[in-house]
Amino acid sequence: METHGADIYTASEISGYNEDDIMDFSSNINPLGVPETVALAAVNSIKHTGRYPDINSRMLIDAISAYENVPKEFIFVSNGAAEAIYRISACLKPEAGMIIAPSFSEYEKSMKLFGTVINYYCLKEEDSFKVTEDILNCINEKTDIAFICNPNNPTGQLTEKIILEKMIIKLKERNAFLAVDECFLDFTGNSEKYSTVDLLDKYDNLIVIKAFTKIFAIPGIRLGYCMSSNAELINNLKSTGPPWNVSTVAQAAGIAALKEREYLKRTVSYVKEQRNYLFDELEKSGIKAYESHANYILFKTDILDLKKQMLKRKILIRSCSNYVNLSSEYYRIAVRTKEENKIFIEKLKEIMGKR
Amino acid sequence: METHGADIYTASEISGYNEDDIMDFSSNINPLGVPETVALAAVNSIKHTGRYPDINSRMLIDAISAYENVPKEFIFVSNGAAEAIYRISACLKPEAGMIIAPSFSEYEKSMKLFGTVINYYCLKEEDSFKVTEDILNCINEKTDIAFICNPNNPTGQLTEKIILEKMIIKLKERNAFLAVDECFLDFTGNSEKYSTVDLLDKYDNLIVIKAFTKIFAIPGIRLGYCMSSNAELINNLKSTGPPWNVSTVAQAAGIAALKEREYLKRTVSYVKEQRNYLFDELEKSGIKAYESHANYILFKTDILDLKKQMLKRKILIRSCSNYVNLSSEYYRIAVRTKEENKIFIEKLKEIMGKR
Repeated sequence: METHGADIYTASEISGYNEDDIMDFSSNINPLGVPETVALAAVNSIKHTGRYPDINSRMLIDAISAYENVPKEFIFVSNGAAEAIYRISACLKPEAGMIIAPSFSEYEKSMKLFGTVINYYCLKEEDSFKVTEDILNCINEKTDIAFICNPNNPTGQLTEKIILEKMIIKLKERNAFLAVDECFLDFTGNSEKYSTVDLLDKYDNLIVIKAFTKIFAIPGIRLGYCMSSNAELINNLKSTGPPWNVSTVAQAAGIAALKEREYLKRTVSYVKEQRNYLFDELEKSGIKAYESHANYILFKTDILDLKKQMLKRKILIRSCSNYVNLSSEYYRIAVRTKEENKIFIEKLKEIMGKR
Repeated sequence: METHGADIYTASEISGYNEDDIMDFSSNINPLGVPETVALAAVNSIKHTGRYPDINSRMLIDAISAYENVPKEFIFVSNGAAEAIYRISACLKPEAGMIIAPSFSEYEKSMKLFGTVINYYCLKEEDSFKVTEDILNCINEKTDIAFICNPNNPTGQLTEKIILEKMIIKLKERNAFLAVDECFLDFTGNSEKYSTVDLLDKYDNLIVIKAFTKIFAIPGIRLGYCMSSNAELINNLKSTGPPWNVSTVAQAAGIAALKEREYLKRTVSYVKEQRNYLFDELEKSGIKAYESHANYILFKTDILDLKKQMLKRKILIRSCSNYVNLSSEYYRIAVRTKEENKIFIEKLKEIMGKR
């Protein structure tokens, strides 16, 4: 059973195909690939690796501060967004934590290290897996934190900002936190409408998590961050884990990435076009696909062993069987390049034709 | 007050000098610099950063396994040795932990996150800060782990292997662990005599910590590991923190580094020669220096504000005033290149001449 997508190395072992020959639809990475300026900054940074990274990531935090329009003091940078999630759980050691299901598994895993009781808000297929106001009923007197991914992974659904704000207010009453994971929000083209970053000033129990990994296509470099106006929390995040957690390479790549505004615009339109293509083709093939605002699509099919059959054809997809509240009929695919997406659909039709 | 050396960025802010113009004697990095093959491997790895790193670091673990001559199952790789230390503390959540003083501060910091009571074995100046058998008396019925750095940082002293083995046996009686940090051992040229790696098979309560950072001069890349024959511990280390903790760049650099046997030999003789030079010059200047087996030297002087005076001369040294069991008269310097060491001694004499 897989825990995550993105394990092309195991896929290579199982299939016998070289990693470079497998098309990875299992990890949700920007199909435009690493921006050239970012790769160049990473390469150039290697000459400085004989020196410790700046323990305070000063230049990178300056760049994030300008990009997000938040004070520097709000920012904690991490070795991938996953590290931010683990440090948040380590700081708060929540008695109970609320998560939506299905969602990214690391919220739950990180809290379970501290014996946290997990409450699930189960998304309903008939609501297209949309979060509705009844999520507020899931916050109880023991809840210390709620994690919500927006848009959600693996469903691609967005949660209305007004619902998030109501959650923040209700959680605030008992000094609990809302952590909103906006790692995929920049793919939607709707950040202005949906992002909670502008609420940070108003609510000191809000944490916003972001990653460079997905949107700038640098998962191999590891870089994420989170933001909060709660100074105590940010200080605790810094001390709750090893120093020098962000490499020199990641700091340099991150600074270069945040200048790539044009690339972000191209990403949004490219992903939208290709997501529509994949969605339409899935539906035309009689497969139930769920509306997505992100760079991936969840779908449901009774084709047996689809993942295995795809891997035979050198395509790696994400089985969603290990998600809470999903079953083995669900799969997630990333929106890849036009050429790759076309091949995916061809192979899918080939498999369906054989039935 | 500084927590660590290696903060050339703050030194640059304070002094107004460019980082590149400051000679960093505060971080204990191999003076031979990053091996060319390692830098090249890091640069080449950038083209793969659009892909997640191998979550299991397979190729790197194969390389470490061959290098250390231990089974693959014994190895956990981390985002710098510091992350291994924090994960060890997170796995064990020790009731009480024993450390030697002075020593690297992260053992204590990592345990304090879990409310661990810290017992210090205070090294004595009159013993040249050497660990003696009476350390066994510091292990009590509450001790869950003892951390020992060998050779110790900042003293440069080695602890006899027979003492370490006695500690392991005594700790084993109460199911407690000994973690030996051998991050600087490869600088001594005495690994075969002092390393506890060959005891891993025999004792499942032994953990050996190592770093690529210092010996291969790649602190900017972040790579460390630890080893134990305790399968439960190794599995726990993997799940007690974020996945994908070791970047693609670090995995590639590490694999290349372990092939650099010739570089390691040159390192040992170069460091020995230059350490002797620095030691002799310090002593000739009437400064009390302590015998070291590592790539740094601890010394004691009543020159006021030596760190400040050195920084004015574009040299950054490590004040040891914040070490438990040391005071503001103690400083640590790294063994740097012949040219840099000569300049350090010149500047020191200049400062002493002014008194």
